Amino acid sequence: MSKIAVALLHYPILNRHGETSTTAITSIDVHDFARSCAFYDVDPVYLVHPAPAMHALIDDMNDYYINGAGGDKKPARKIMLESIRCVYSLQDALDEADYQLWYTSAEAPEAGSVDPSKLLEIEGNHLIVFGTGWGLDVKNLPPGNGWLSPIEGVGRVRHLSVRGALAIYLDRLRR
Amino acid sequence: MSKIAVALLHYPILNRHGETSTTAITSIDVHDFARSCAFYDVDPVYLVHPAPAMHALIDDMNDYYINGAGGDKKPARKIMLESIRCVYSLQDALDEADYQLWYTSAEAPEAGSVDPSKLLEIEGNHLIVFGTGWGLDVKNLPPGNGWLSPIEGVGRVRHLSVRGALAIYLDRLRR
Repeated sequence: MSKIAVALLHYPILNRHGETSTTAITSIDVHDFARSCAFYDVDPVYLVHPAPAMHALIDDMNDYYINGAGGDKKPARKIMLESIRCVYSLQDALDEADYQLWYTSAEAPEAGSVDPSKLLEIEGNHLIVFGTGWGLDVKNLPPGNGWLSPIEGVGRVRHLSVRGALAIYLDRLRR
Repeated sequence: MSKIAVALLHYPILNRHGETSTTAITSIDVHDFARSCAFYDVDPVYLVHPAPAMHALIDDMNDYYINGAGGDKKPARKIMLESIRCVYSLQDALDEADYQLWYTSAEAPEAGSVDPSKLLEIEGNHLIVFGTGWGLDVKNLPPGNGWLSPIEGVGRVRHLSVRGALAIYLDRLRR
């Protein structure tokens, strides 16, 4: 039986100049990642950020739903936010379980990449990594088992939001 | 040749008590809807809201990218936001083209609903309608051609964000 977890990386990622950089965690990413992952039975959702103050902010926001009055009014939000785990590095997530590591990118190599619909056929624990900013800074990340196949658009822009990409990957994976 | 457009409804929708209500347009919905639709060649994106001041706010925000300095720095954002159309009612969108009207809901009837992957086999212009708040207030909306099949989760919550649902519907439709 395969188990799926997700990580949203805020460091090390690339900025618009291709330099190693850090982004802020946004509340909309927390809620959309938590919700899509709860909907498709994916857990935990690691938010990777090196700053303790960023963790404190996110934990404080989520505490309103997990332990506070928000969870009484909106029980689904309590359930989904309980999957959120702030960690300082991708390695911290890897230390928690025997994960096979899968990277995603709009520019992922087509050749040799794994179709998300095939991932559940591979036994074990899988960690799917999403980038923010201008994408994953792979040269400063641990070697992965591989890439998931990129989502090919047919339209006028080449990138989805990371929230849209996550939803589509999980849908393809679970169908 | 089929053509797909999308509408995000802020009135008439239901509130938590099941009453006819209005929600605010959020900037994250504008950007995520515009981006996912541009990625999958869907156009226009109608934002349905009855208040002229809400239109003015959205148009002013988008103007920075469509006509202002933002579009020079981020050309993809200019392209995608050009698809956004604020209208006062769903009827205003229907008056613009000979649309076949398709509603979506997490509680859409399974029986008789149309799988999104089949929609392009039906010739003509299609308008797919998404709700905000606690969902579409169908009794106060024009009769549709039908419902798109609901997205079935396997997890711990029953609803996706409307941004996630849009991304998945368009992916299923275009694959």
